[in-house]
Amino acid sequence: MPVSCIAKPGIVGQAGTARLLATCQDRPGIVSAVSGFLYRHGVNITHSDQHSTDPEGGRFFLRQEFYLSGLENCLGDLENEFEREVAGEYKMQWRLVPAKRKKRMVILVSRLDHALMDLLWRVGRGEMPAEIPLVISNHPDLRPQVESFGVAFHHVHVPEAHDAPRGRGLSLPEERMLEIMGAEGPIDLVVLARYMRILSPAFVKRFPQRIINIHHSFLPAFEGADPYRRAAERGVKLIGATAHYVTGKLDKGPIIEQDVIRVSHRHRLDEFKILGRDIERQVLSRAVRWHLEDRVLVDGNKTIVFA
Amino acid sequence: MPVSCIAKPGIVGQAGTARLLATCQDRPGIVSAVSGFLYRHGVNITHSDQHSTDPEGGRFFLRQEFYLSGLENCLGDLENEFEREVAGEYKMQWRLVPAKRKKRMVILVSRLDHALMDLLWRVGRGEMPAEIPLVISNHPDLRPQVESFGVAFHHVHVPEAHDAPRGRGLSLPEERMLEIMGAEGPIDLVVLARYMRILSPAFVKRFPQRIINIHHSFLPAFEGADPYRRAAERGVKLIGATAHYVTGKLDKGPIIEQDVIRVSHRHRLDEFKILGRDIERQVLSRAVRWHLEDRVLVDGNKTIVFA
Amino acid sequence: MPVSCIAKPGIVGQAGTARLLATCQDRPGIVSAVSGFLYRHGVNITHSDQHSTDPEGGRFFLRQEFYLSGLENCLGDLENEFEREVAGEYKMQWRLVPAKRKKRMVILVSRLDHALMDLLWRVGRGEMPAEIPLVISNHPDLRPQVESFGVAFHHVHVPEAHDAPRGRGLSLPEERMLEIMGAEGPIDLVVLARYMRILSPAFVKRFPQRIINIHHSFLPAFEGADPYRRAAERGVKLIGATAHYVTGKLDKGPIIEQDVIRVSHRHRLDEFKILGRDIERQVLSRAVRWHLEDRVLVDGNKTIVFA
Amino acid sequence: MPVSCIAKPGIVGQAGTARLLATCQDRPGIVSAVSGFLYRHGVNITHSDQHSTDPEGGRFFLRQEFYLSGLENCLGDLENEFEREVAGEYKMQWRLVPAKRKKRMVILVSRLDHALMDLLWRVGRGEMPAEIPLVISNHPDLRPQVESFGVAFHHVHVPEAHDAPRGRGLSLPEERMLEIMGAEGPIDLVVLARYMRILSPAFVKRFPQRIINIHHSFLPAFEGADPYRRAAERGVKLIGATAHYVTGKLDKGPIIEQDVIRVSHRHRLDEFKILGRDIERQVLSRAVRWHLEDRVLVDGNKTIVFA
Repeated sequence: MPVSCIAKPGIVGQAGTARLLATCQDRPGIVSAVSGFLYRHGVNITHSDQHSTDPEGGRFFLRQEFYLSGLENCLGDLENEFEREVAGEYKMQWRLVPAKRKKRMVILVSRLDHALMDLLWRVGRGEMPAEIPLVISNHPDLRPQVESFGVAFHHVHVPEAHDAPRGRGLSLPEERMLEIMGAEGPIDLVVLARYMRILSPAFVKRFPQRIINIHHSFLPAFEGADPYRRAAERGVKLIGATAHYVTGKLDKGPIIEQDVIRVSHRHRLDEFKILGRDIERQVLSRAVRWHLEDRVLVDGNKTIVFA
Repeated sequence: MPVSCIAKPGIVGQAGTARLLATCQDRPGIVSAVSGFLYRHGVNITHSDQHSTDPEGGRFFLRQEFYLSGLENCLGDLENEFEREVAGEYKMQWRLVPAKRKKRMVILVSRLDHALMDLLWRVGRGEMPAEIPLVISNHPDLRPQVESFGVAFHHVHVPEAHDAPRGRGLSLPEERMLEIMGAEGPIDLVVLARYMRILSPAFVKRFPQRIINIHHSFLPAFEGADPYRRAAERGVKLIGATAHYVTGKLDKGPIIEQDVIRVSHRHRLDEFKILGRDIERQVLSRAVRWHLEDRVLVDGNKTIVFA
Repeated sequence: MPVSCIAKPGIVGQAGTARLLATCQDRPGIVSAVSGFLYRHGVNITHSDQHSTDPEGGRFFLRQEFYLSGLENCLGDLENEFEREVAGEYKMQWRLVPAKRKKRMVILVSRLDHALMDLLWRVGRGEMPAEIPLVISNHPDLRPQVESFGVAFHHVHVPEAHDAPRGRGLSLPEERMLEIMGAEGPIDLVVLARYMRILSPAFVKRFPQRIINIHHSFLPAFEGADPYRRAAERGVKLIGATAHYVTGKLDKGPIIEQDVIRVSHRHRLDEFKILGRDIERQVLSRAVRWHLEDRVLVDGNKTIVFA
Repeated sequence: MPVSCIAKPGIVGQAGTARLLATCQDRPGIVSAVSGFLYRHGVNITHSDQHSTDPEGGRFFLRQEFYLSGLENCLGDLENEFEREVAGEYKMQWRLVPAKRKKRMVILVSRLDHALMDLLWRVGRGEMPAEIPLVISNHPDLRPQVESFGVAFHHVHVPEAHDAPRGRGLSLPEERMLEIMGAEGPIDLVVLARYMRILSPAFVKRFPQRIINIHHSFLPAFEGADPYRRAAERGVKLIGATAHYVTGKLDKGPIIEQDVIRVSHRHRLDEFKILGRDIERQVLSRAVRWHLEDRVLVDGNKTIVFA
């Protein structure tokens, strides 16, 4: 067993920290194989989470945070050896992510600024390991707010009645958005921070499990348009928000996070919206942070969140 | 203005305490008229809640708790004078309820005991102003538990495939239930404490705004059967429960109270059910207590809860 | 009874909306007297809240929102007549506040920006009825962020070891702060948005029940310095924040609002701080909004919040 | 390596399920050593949680659930081999617990029944893996309720002014309690379900990390007597409950679980108590269930809860 990448004594820190994400059919011995491999390479596991969807015949999910001195110099070797020694045997889907590599996140927004601002604040403050190369909006309104953070703002007009040619291709505005994004280099995550247009399946397919939307209801209640109005009409006593990965089916993708806030007969629709904003931005921020920290794994139409 | 019923000096207490519930079209002067009337009759208002659904052209709702020494001797007079002096003018729907009069509550249940036990226990320890003359179940299982509280238990078999002849009349088991209840005198409230049969519209009409059901989901999500299973399949991150008045439309009646509890990928369906029970019994108990204390007013398909 | 101020037909709106706040010893007839007075003046009460601390011999608190066409022209008359016809009789402390008059709020802050940004942003988007003439900080760091909202920023250095001469007078930095604030006209509210210096009793006395502080713990747990560290050391499972009026006694003033968030053994101190920020800004924002809308009444060392 | 205990093909189920709990100084290789050991013995790990208090020089905690066919026949061998092959090397404190072995739990209670009833209900319903051989109370009141569950009830009078001779020995009532408990065989857990007497250090020492108390406040706020009264006097906006292990220092032991509920100026002290009961029983039930399922590990004066 050629071990090309062995830890030297060092300080645990962001620099040498990485995350291993893996999933495969569950069977005995996986944890032993993975942790044995890491141990032989001098890796110190600092956090570990695992989940099996069923004790018999289920699917196995693993997330480990570990520290390896000199990681940056031997990441490629470690990956090759992991594939050869462990992953192949178990038919794993897996990836190794150095913690210091910040994900690149594009935000799409319309006119409401609360979810956008919250993300910009948090990234600016270092609460979230991300870079925001640009923000795209179908309205010009939020340009000054975005630019005050030193982030590029692009306005791409999207006609109200725009219906992307479903199942066939990108709409023209989407082509324009991809062009803008492409000019900035690779994009790890697209966040819809109250973006009020529906993306075409063709666009969504470009970013599998990498588009997060905030829907302003407690899904599956009030899928679709105008959830606060419908919540007010139904007379619910709690209103909610849901962050989910976007798939081809509107508001049906895997849910990452949800939360609610209490309302009463005293709250009118405009107060539902004000109260709801607070929940929306919190739920979205939590979901985005978990995604950025590689804590969210997708299992069919559900998520496993190692928070 | 003949004032037949005037307070003598006395101690504020349960005996002389009453609640005034009133609703009418909103217009200026209602509060002045009501509180002036009560003041002239020597009534001391101890709590007051009001709500207008719209500052212009809305509907007005009022709940006042007050104390009147010797109330029991002059309730009839007070009612007559209120109708003549105030309610007629404003076309009010209203009622006066002495606080010491406990409501009579029948509980319908199937096999799960958690919601039932919580109600029996709270009534027994005086947390809820109610009498429970009897419990009816479509299964015999819970007889010993109910009888240990000194409450009569009746088993009325309801065939699984029983479909009450919708819109036309009572089913045979429902006739039997009404017969049992009728023998006990007037019933103020019917509580469905996880009663797993659907009541016919004809039965529901007998108890308008007087049947409270606990549904084991956060309505309007997961109306109908098996909500926990469907919640698990959808991968929600919170599960909930909803207490509502029963109307002719399944799970569509006015919501009184809702609450939720957090779940994760680690919880299996049976754990959803265990966690859900805690929320169900709390939500139902709150809704029932509010109803018993005349805190719930119905406005179309919504409730106003003066909690 | 000369009624100088009578409503003409008009549209209910912000312009003619006002709030009546009143407190006195409880006794029968207060609501009748107040609502009768308002009715005779053509006022339409749109919301009303009242509270009595004890049904016998307690203190009575009232908040009413009402609409009066042409309010701006007759406010003085209405006040004079209310004092003469109602308030004198009941020895009320009271005030009438036109809703359109925005309160003027100064924010004191140190280095942490989350609570400050949330207030600036909410005021900017109209969620809170306030004007912010200026922000004062004992550090220069947040100047650009504040000025990007078009708000004046003043840096007043306050020595770390500064101990205001307790009970005797203002410290020099406090004198400077009052000078800056005085130049801006009357100040209705001072908000300590994570301001890390202790104000002298002499300063506090200038703003009775008009200084709101956010303390980063669930008071009375962890009064004083470093609450997150102490919470982490104690191993609590929830961390909280408390907004309260500042009095001469550190962290002992009347509590306006509190909330908590769940933590676990997995969270380190720096994560307590990040999670705590979210609760701090929410709790502070709610408390400030309630104060701005005249929803908070003080009863000894407690608050009555008509939210 | 003699492997005496190897899995045969079998069905995963309660019968062959066990939990490994282990703690030691953190260093690389622990997970690899443990999981390698279990794999060689044919064990299928179904859940695994680990925690390190610090990535460098911290303490390591592990909880694994696993399945082993024929476990009951080879548990002793497995334990011996684990000690020899793994635990000795890492100086682990550890234990192996078959899941089907129900813990034996004694409940101490005074007059309030809510926490007691909740535990009796949950155990009766199979929500908690425990046996309750007996309940002891310093009052005779709850005998009928306890006996209706088929559980033995013992009344041991404890004088009000009883102060156990601190630091020296057991009080007479405590000797009597130990005698009663001893007659029933080994006791795994003592639950103080609103038991209103203070236990002596000598008594507490008999059950290290095996006495759980519910305190009716959000600790460390309102340690000691009468927390609800003091919470009402302080004017808090949330009241809470805390379940913790009992140590020699009153209300200072490791916290297992906490929760809160919202109150307002409208709630009087008696309503604080009613609302508080709901939180008390939930918090205690969660803590007890986690203990029964070996999910709580103690780290100094804190807990690690693998829930």
